[in-house]
Amino acid sequence: MNVPRDVVSFLCVASVALLGAVAHAATDEPIKPITTPTDIHQKKAELGKKLFFDPRLSKSGFISCNSCHNLSMGGSDNLKTSIGHNWQKGPINAPTVLNSSLNFVQFWDGRAETLKDQAGGPIANPGEMAFTHDLAEKVLESIPGYVADFQAVYGKDQIDIDHITDAIAEFEKTLVTPNSRFDQWLKGDKKVLNKEEVAGYTLFKNSGCISCHYGEAMGGTSFQKMGIMEEYNSKSSAEGRVAVTGKDEDRFAFKVPTLRNVELTYPYFHDGEAETLTEAVDVMGRLQLGTTFTAEQNAQIVAFLKTLTGDQPTFTLPILPPSTDNTPRPKPFE
Amino acid sequence: MNVPRDVVSFLCVASVALLGAVAHAATDEPIKPITTPTDIHQKKAELGKKLFFDPRLSKSGFISCNSCHNLSMGGSDNLKTSIGHNWQKGPINAPTVLNSSLNFVQFWDGRAETLKDQAGGPIANPGEMAFTHDLAEKVLESIPGYVADFQAVYGKDQIDIDHITDAIAEFEKTLVTPNSRFDQWLKGDKKVLNKEEVAGYTLFKNSGCISCHYGEAMGGTSFQKMGIMEEYNSKSSAEGRVAVTGKDEDRFAFKVPTLRNVELTYPYFHDGEAETLTEAVDVMGRLQLGTTFTAEQNAQIVAFLKTLTGDQPTFTLPILPPSTDNTPRPKPFE
Repeated sequence: MNVPRDVVSFLCVASVALLGAVAHAATDEPIKPITTPTDIHQKKAELGKKLFFDPRLSKSGFISCNSCHNLSMGGSDNLKTSIGHNWQKGPINAPTVLNSSLNFVQFWDGRAETLKDQAGGPIANPGEMAFTHDLAEKVLESIPGYVADFQAVYGKDQIDIDHITDAIAEFEKTLVTPNSRFDQWLKGDKKVLNKEEVAGYTLFKNSGCISCHYGEAMGGTSFQKMGIMEEYNSKSSAEGRVAVTGKDEDRFAFKVPTLRNVELTYPYFHDGEAETLTEAVDVMGRLQLGTTFTAEQNAQIVAFLKTLTGDQPTFTLPILPPSTDNTPRPKPFE
Repeated sequence: MNVPRDVVSFLCVASVALLGAVAHAATDEPIKPITTPTDIHQKKAELGKKLFFDPRLSKSGFISCNSCHNLSMGGSDNLKTSIGHNWQKGPINAPTVLNSSLNFVQFWDGRAETLKDQAGGPIANPGEMAFTHDLAEKVLESIPGYVADFQAVYGKDQIDIDHITDAIAEFEKTLVTPNSRFDQWLKGDKKVLNKEEVAGYTLFKNSGCISCHYGEAMGGTSFQKMGIMEEYNSKSSAEGRVAVTGKDEDRFAFKVPTLRNVELTYPYFHDGEAETLTEAVDVMGRLQLGTTFTAEQNAQIVAFLKTLTGDQPTFTLPILPPSTDNTPRPKPFE
């Protein structure tokens, strides 16, 4: 029963490898340096930054977007799975928000097409921020500082979830991480990588990792089955893309995660079960490529992966406008 | 039985009022503008900032100092009582960390003499960050970025809790909020306050609020019984200073909180039961001063209190050095 699915997945990998080869021909390398967006609406992004840090978008008043996508820690929470309202254990590892604008879809199962669509999810998820969009609007509308911001950006006194998520998405578009050592190398400064790191990159390409982790984000451009050559035994109940499509062949297919800043975004995989890069590289080699890397090869690839840490977003911690007597109060213990 | 305690408290208030009067004579006003410290050890404060934002000082890897003393929200969490490890409900309202260097002692019951002594408390408190000092040291020592920072500041490779809390305290010393509208007024710019605000300040002095809320921080310089003229009925089990001294007369005596940035640090009192400034002013008037303010008087005092919001600390969100393969992992669900 498993054979046909594996073949499908393998063909999928092979076709993506072809894409990688095309990219290679066009730019010399199948990975491209991260570019900084030039079309940011600054006022909107500033508003979005406040919202990203505002725990009043949660029922408890304690959890903000930044709680699980912590911009001090690679845009992740560095936990296997996240902690939600009332200390609920999340079903899946929180993906980094860094470079998430480069993903072709959002969430591990791709159930959101855009950053804007994604942003509304956790706010209303009973296991995460446990709020409602309606209450989020009411809270923000009660705060003059926010009303003025929304008026300035959207030209309306009324605040709706559509604009809330639009502003958060605009801020998230700024969260790219250019200028990693690898990107400097790609741009021609060949001295910034040492021999081990270059050997790791060569091995990364030649062994097939590049088949899925190519392009600017080195991932985020396809779904792939977790466990092609060998089955992946997970404690997680997450089944991936099938939750969206209902198709059996999409069971255990997950969006390929970006490898940008991967040194910062431990632990790894959708279930967060790989604690170290060494373990992640070993599992990926065996399960996805049918390759058992030697300790030396593994170390080379890990050394290469650590060159992918870019400039982290640098900004002033936002100061949030205070609630008023009319602001609905958080209910952390109800 | 209550009378003697009340008399003691009243005498205490009266003597503090005298102090206020002395201060008045010396500086024209019993409240002084916030000054910015000039003796900050910058490298130490930068290290302390990272530690302040680092949830790896908690068992869960989810709670940092900034979780409950959120510098986006007036250095508080704006909750009645805080949320601790495993969503435990804290026993008391988290006091603001802003201007906490001006407090004569730390915590509501003054059980820590210094900011440094305070900083170690929440880390090891099973109801808060639920970690141990030993594990905090082990985590930081496993992270080369921190080892380098501690080496640069303290000249030692070994990291101990004494230095961890020393660095956090140094950062906290930077968290003062000068330049409020009221401070501008104090310094001579009489146009920045309107008539209602000035009337509120006059009333604040004449009705006796100033007896406890004087000096640079407008509080933080004495313990006072909560409920002098009338008993305060609290749902909280916190009994204040008696927990430290064991003396019956210290039951329900709490450190007078600062009124600086009080617009941002809602809800109010040690139990967080007063949701608005209007309510807080009313209760304080009746219970501490035996005065029932009219609606107009109350509004004047509230208008004055809102002039006490100073420049919030402005700094770049710190980027934390990543864990390594050897870093003890967080245990959020154990």
